[in-house]
Order: sequence, then C-alpha cells, then structure tokens
Amino acid sequence: MKNIVVIGGGAAGMSAASRIRRLMPDSSIKVFEESSYVSYAPCGIPYYVEDTVKDVDDLVTYTPEFFIKERNIDVHTRTQVTAVDVGASEVSFVSESGEGRAKFDYLLMATGAIPFSPVKKWIECDNVYTVRHLEDGYSIKSRLASATNVAVVGGGYIGVEMAEAISKLGKKVTVLEMKRIMPNLDQDISSAIASYMKEKGVTVREGFEVKSIENSSGSVLVSNGSASEKYDAAVLALGVRPNVELAREMGLKIGETGAIWVDEHMRTSNPSVFAAGDNVEVKDVVLGKRRYVPLAPEANKEGYVAGSNVAGMSMSFPGSVGAAITKFYDMEIGSVGINEEEARANGIDYYAVRIKHNARASYYPPQQSIEMKVIFDKGRKVPIGAQLIGGEIFGRLSALSLAISYKIDAEKLFFSGIPYAPPFAPVWDSVIVASRIFNEHVL
Amino acid sequence: MKNIVVIGGGAAGMSAASRIRRLMPDSSIKVFEESSYVSYAPCGIPYYVEDTVKDVDDLVTYTPEFFIKERNIDVHTRTQVTAVDVGASEVSFVSESGEGRAKFDYLLMATGAIPFSPVKKWIECDNVYTVRHLEDGYSIKSRLASATNVAVVGGGYIGVEMAEAISKLGKKVTVLEMKRIMPNLDQDISSAIASYMKEKGVTVREGFEVKSIENSSGSVLVSNGSASEKYDAAVLALGVRPNVELAREMGLKIGETGAIWVDEHMRTSNPSVFAAGDNVEVKDVVLGKRRYVPLAPEANKEGYVAGSNVAGMSMSFPGSVGAAITKFYDMEIGSVGINEEEARANGIDYYAVRIKHNARASYYPPQQSIEMKVIFDKGRKVPIGAQLIGGEIFGRLSALSLAISYKIDAEKLFFSGIPYAPPFAPVWDSVIVASRIFNEHVL
Repeated sequence: MKNIVVIGGGAAGMSAASRIRRLMPDSSIKVFEESSYVSYAPCGIPYYVEDTVKDVDDLVTYTPEFFIKERNIDVHTRTQVTAVDVGASEVSFVSESGEGRAKFDYLLMATGAIPFSPVKKWIECDNVYTVRHLEDGYSIKSRLASATNVAVVGGGYIGVEMAEAISKLGKKVTVLEMKRIMPNLDQDISSAIASYMKEKGVTVREGFEVKSIENSSGSVLVSNGSASEKYDAAVLALGVRPNVELAREMGLKIGETGAIWVDEHMRTSNPSVFAAGDNVEVKDVVLGKRRYVPLAPEANKEGYVAGSNVAGMSMSFPGSVGAAITKFYDMEIGSVGINEEEARANGIDYYAVRIKHNARASYYPPQQSIEMKVIFDKGRKVPIGAQLIGGEIFGRLSALSLAISYKIDAEKLFFSGIPYAPPFAPVWDSVIVASRIFNEHVL
Repeated sequence: MKNIVVIGGGAAGMSAASRIRRLMPDSSIKVFEESSYVSYAPCGIPYYVEDTVKDVDDLVTYTPEFFIKERNIDVHTRTQVTAVDVGASEVSFVSESGEGRAKFDYLLMATGAIPFSPVKKWIECDNVYTVRHLEDGYSIKSRLASATNVAVVGGGYIGVEMAEAISKLGKKVTVLEMKRIMPNLDQDISSAIASYMKEKGVTVREGFEVKSIENSSGSVLVSNGSASEKYDAAVLALGVRPNVELAREMGLKIGETGAIWVDEHMRTSNPSVFAAGDNVEVKDVVLGKRRYVPLAPEANKEGYVAGSNVAGMSMSFPGSVGAAITKFYDMEIGSVGINEEEARANGIDYYAVRIKHNARASYYPPQQSIEMKVIFDKGRKVPIGAQLIGGEIFGRLSALSLAISYKIDAEKLFFSGIPYAPPFAPVWDSVIVASRIFNEHVL
C-alpha cells in the first residue's frame, strides 16, 4: 500500500487525490489544507460579493466530509504543513489539535498561489483585502455593507470582476491600475473596456502606480507618491505569485518564471514529488516556452495528470494556450494565446485582423456585437492569439482556442463548421470572417 | 471581358457574384432570381412568423439595388431562367417585361432547393404553405392571424422552428412526423425534445405518415389513411430536395444523392458551369462519402469557392460536417457529424458518451444544463458526431465541430482550452468531461 500526501486542497490537489483514489483503491491519501475548505472555487468570490451567489458555501463543490466519506480521502483542513523532510519522505504539519507527521511514498505539491502585494504590510492594513480564500469573500462582503467608497488596486481579470461586483452593490468604485485595464490585452481592446467601465460609473485610473497603502482614522489611504486618496476599503487585485516557499526549502527546482519546475508528467526535480496547479509553470503551446498560467481548468487537468502518473500511468500535460474569459456587466471579455506585444517581443511576423461583427443574425433581437482581434502568424498562417469583447463570445473563443492549440490554419478555419441559426450566429460568423480577411490579406 | 451568369440570387449565388466582382472588376455579372428578393435569409422566416422579427424586409441582408449600385452586379428579380443552351453558352429567361437571352463564359447554377412534397398537389391546396421564399413567410403570417388550429407536417429543423413560432402566436399546434421528432438525431435525444415540446403545449404525433392533404369547406384535411384530421392551416416542412431540373435538362451530371455533382472546385461535369448551394452534393468530412447538406453557411462558402474559381483561382471546398443548431423555446438543439444509426450503418466501431452537465458553474444562476452525446470512433479515438440539447450549447457544438472536422483525438480534446469563468462554464466543461469519459473507457 502506497502513502500519498497532497499539500493543498484546492482544484489541483483534490483533482489529483480523486484520480489517485480511483486508480489506486488501496492507497492511503492524506490532504492537508490550510483553510476551512477544500475543492472550492475562489473564481466565484466576486459573484458572492455582488450577491448573485447568496451563500459562500455554494462556492464549495464538495465538502471535506464528502471526500472523507465518499472517496476515502483523509482530508485535514485548517492544517498547515510546516516542513517536508525529503530524505525521510515525511511531512510535518500543525493544526488546532497539535503537531503531527505523515510519511509519503509520493508527495503532491498543490500549494497554489498567493495574491501579490509589492509591500507585505499593505495586506495587513485594516479594510484591505485580497481574493484568495472563501473566507476573504466573506470578509469583503461583510465590510462592504457599510462602505461607500472602495478602491480596487489592479485592473486585470480579478480587478475587473471585483469592480463589477462592488459597483453592483451601489458603491463608488475606483480602479487603480499601473498600466492599463486588462494589461494582458492590447491597448486597443483595453481602451474599449475602460470606456465601457466608465460608462457604467466606475472610475478608472490608468497609469496609477500605488506606492503606499496605509490606515488613517478608519480609512485606507492609497498613494501614488504624489497624491494620496482616501477610501473606506481597498481590494488588492495585483495578480498572484506561485506559492513556492516549501518547494524552495525542499530544494525543488524553481523554473524561469519563479514557479515550480515540472516535466510534462507534472513531476518535479525530485522523482517522488509531483506538483500541479497555480504553483507550477507549464508549456506555452504557442511560444513553446515555459509560462506561469494560474487558471482553474489548467490546475484541474494538471492535478488529473499528476494523479494519473502517481498511480503509475504515463500521461503528459501538453501545455496551455491560456484561454480566459470574464465579464463586466454586459461586456464579455476573453483572450487566448499571445497578444501583439508578445508576438513582437518574440519576433513573430504576424498580421492582426480586427473586426466588429454581429453575434447573431442582424435581424434577430437583441442585437449584440463582438469585437474580435485575431493574431495570425504570417509564415505558418495559423492563429496564435485572439482577444474578444462584446456579447456571446464564449463559443467563438472556444473555437479559436482549439484552432490555436491544434494549429488549424486560417484556410481550414475559414471552412470550419460554426453552426448557424438566426438566434445564435450570423451566417458568416466572426471566426469565419476573421479567417477570410487574413486569407485575402496574405494572398 | 468575361460574361458571368448566375442562376439564383440566394446565399450561394450572391456570395459567388460578390466574390467574382471583387476578383474580376471588369467582368459582366448577371444574376437571375425568380423571387422578388436576393441575398435573403429564409432561415429567418420562423422568427418573422412568431413576430420576433417585425418586418419581412429585415430578413434581406442586401437589396437588389445594393448589388446593382454598390457592386455593379446586374440583378434581375422576378425572372425565371427557362433554358440553358450549353453549346451556345446562352441562357433564356422570362420576366414581366418579356423574354431575353444572355451569353456566358461561365455559368453558376445556384438554383437552391425546393420544399419536398410527396404529392405535388398538396402544396397547391389553400392554406397549405411551405417555407422557402420570404413571400411564404408573409403568406403564412397573414393567414395565421385568423387560424386557431395549425398542423406542421414534418418534425425536422424547420418543422420544430415553425411549431415554436406558431405556438408563440397562441395557436394550437400539432406536429405530424412520420418517424420521430428531429429524425436526424438518435431516439434518446429525439425523445427528450418531444417531451419538452409537449410540455410547451405542442401536440406531437410521431409515426404519423401523411397520406393525403386536401381542402374541405375552408379547412385543411390531413389524413394518414386511417384517420382524417381537420386544421385551419398546414405548414409542410418535409425537408428539401435539390432543384436540379435545369441541370438535368442541360445534361449536367447528377450525383448519387440526387443533387448536382461537383468537384472540390465546385465545377460541374461541364467545365464552363459551376454550381453551389442547396442544389449540390459535397463531401461528408466524417464518412468521406458524398452528401447533400442544404445549410446556409455551406451555401455561402461554396459560393465563395465557386466564385474564386470562376475568377481563375484554385480553391477547394473541403466538405462539411453538417453542423446545425436551432431552438425550441428555451431548449437549444444542435448536432454535427454523424449519429449512432449512421455509425452502425457504416460499420464504425464507436462508443457514445452521453452526459448531462451544467452549462455554467453550478452556483451561478440561472442554472442551465446541457445534455450531450458525443460519438467517438473507437479505433481512431476521434469524435465523429455529437448531439446537444439544453442551454448554452453553441460554444460546445462549435468546439466539437472543429474537433470532428480536424480529427482532434479525444486525448487532445480533453486538454482543450475551453475558457472558464463561473458565468460561462463549469471548470470541467462538458466537452472536456465527455472526452475524459471516452478516454477512461477505452484505456
């Protein structure tokens, strides 16, 4: 009987544990999770804050009890792993009931990510929040009940989602972003999003680099060095960093991105130790480089692969195209692959097609449009990136994601069977039109 | 200067004419269309009937005047081509203003399809309608104003759409279908659709083969031989047949499906004559056979390919996976590739995965689910068909369509970057789950 220890009960950890249980019915599986929840969806926090989701417990897919009873996985919540003795194949942990140790044949690091804060004490201020654990959602929602003026620091995916959520509660929201709104998208698309956010009453301050955050008589003071602004509360949404503290202490190889290095089997530099989720770097399918992609579907699949391999299979994680989607009120926002900036930085000769197109037949109400940019590699004639905003983007983004992953060239993409009916698409769908424009351009 | 004649001003004809104009600015292009409209969307008729679309003119993408003025295409509406003299490279036509002739260097047959009626005089009855031209939509809508009890004969895509439209007008609707509702889908999926239709108040009579339709004192009598039923009006939606009358007279090769035979360049058996749209057969990408696929996106692209080749390019139409989508009230219905019946008939060793899955995160309202069947070829491990019903199916159907077209195997499909956020998808999307189930099954 093998002993498996999993550190971290989020998406990757529980996905791996479940897979191992299925493939190794006789193994002993222990999961150590520092929060009160496992298998939770931090991506749901903004929707809990805005009250679309009423109960924070709804964000829990399965309870610890489910895993214990139904899957015979020994889940320890509110338990911190304090050290890993690689030589002795043993982890030390501490919980409310004291300290303990557990032996392992295989260890899975699923320690996830930590919200980034340039200065650590910012997040220790009163009324300053980050969005990681479900408990954070609960704290933010409670605090916001009496707040009127809230800063969101950072304008990426989480920042935009939190801005929407807080705005929907009727609060005055200011987004402070060092670069531009959705900085992973190109300037043209970013500008369109910023305009729409302003239209919806959110104050957007681009080029605002926060230099200090501190408390002052119950308020939060945010300064960019020259001006200091006062808010009732602030949410830090400056992205995340891989949680690699333990991995470093264990001497595991850390990759070029600062995340844990793993091979395609999700194995770390130590053959007994696997890693998966927001703490690892994986292959960027477009560029062939290593990349840090802290996204939930990736974490789940990495966990599935790691678990399969712990159980003796030989499964490879092929990498990621980084497909991501969100929305701000009625504007859906999505991207996949690389942007123009990255294409240039990597010396790729590209052509970007930018169109605005109906989401459905022009006569079928409600009218909704999609603004789509598709970046094609001119040499290989394949799409390498796409950015979409508007309505009904999910299907187009999914199709482009497959085309980018599997290098479906623009001529093939033009002939793709995007299904048509007036309530769903125009007869010439945006994906087809973008491909046609590229094909006609390079002829 | 080349003379181009196009017979038929629907999707394929106008797509080809526009493409030729673009590539051959000096050519003379004549289009002959028997109805009053060109570039119209017959697919929009049900939505006009149900009053979602208020004005029948909204279903016209571009007017004849647009093509005449903006694209210098000589469009003749209400004009019937009566004969083609292939030897003399000349067509004869007749319109309200008399008869005429036109010479061509290249001819494009874009004669479309004709609604099928087993007995021709059925469609000559009063208050019996087919759905082909915009004029039909207008007639149906006018007549229905005073009807209360309407039969829809045929339960395929158009039948289901018309049943929804007429039901939404508050009429009593009975669908009479010889086989089963949506006969191109398998029995299990068909049954689920039939149940939902009944739930919405539509009477569904499966296994009802219409043997006669006739008028009797202002009513329409529909009989299956044993029972005769009385309706105020009937809509025939028994599918379409390729309009090949002229093609036969010209001696063009008719394919095994009864549609015009064309090569991959959309060239008929006569090198000066091209054909495109609902009158031709194309390659079935899954089976490699020839198939009749009368769908609008196919017609448009075939027209584009034919037009390109008329202009001297060498472009191939790669075939079709027959992706199609519709909806009945809140149930979206879609399919692509082949069904189980066809897989069996073609001796394919397949495995069908059937799942019911959330369309978005389980906690994000409104809850919507997708019932999905994906048929995989067990040998090649690629998806060869899919049938979906429920909510938010467009994106999943598009992704599966690409996977089927480009033979993305189930392992790759499992790792596809279907974008995730709670309002759009669960973290394990249905496409991923279906692939995983197949992979685990064949291991």
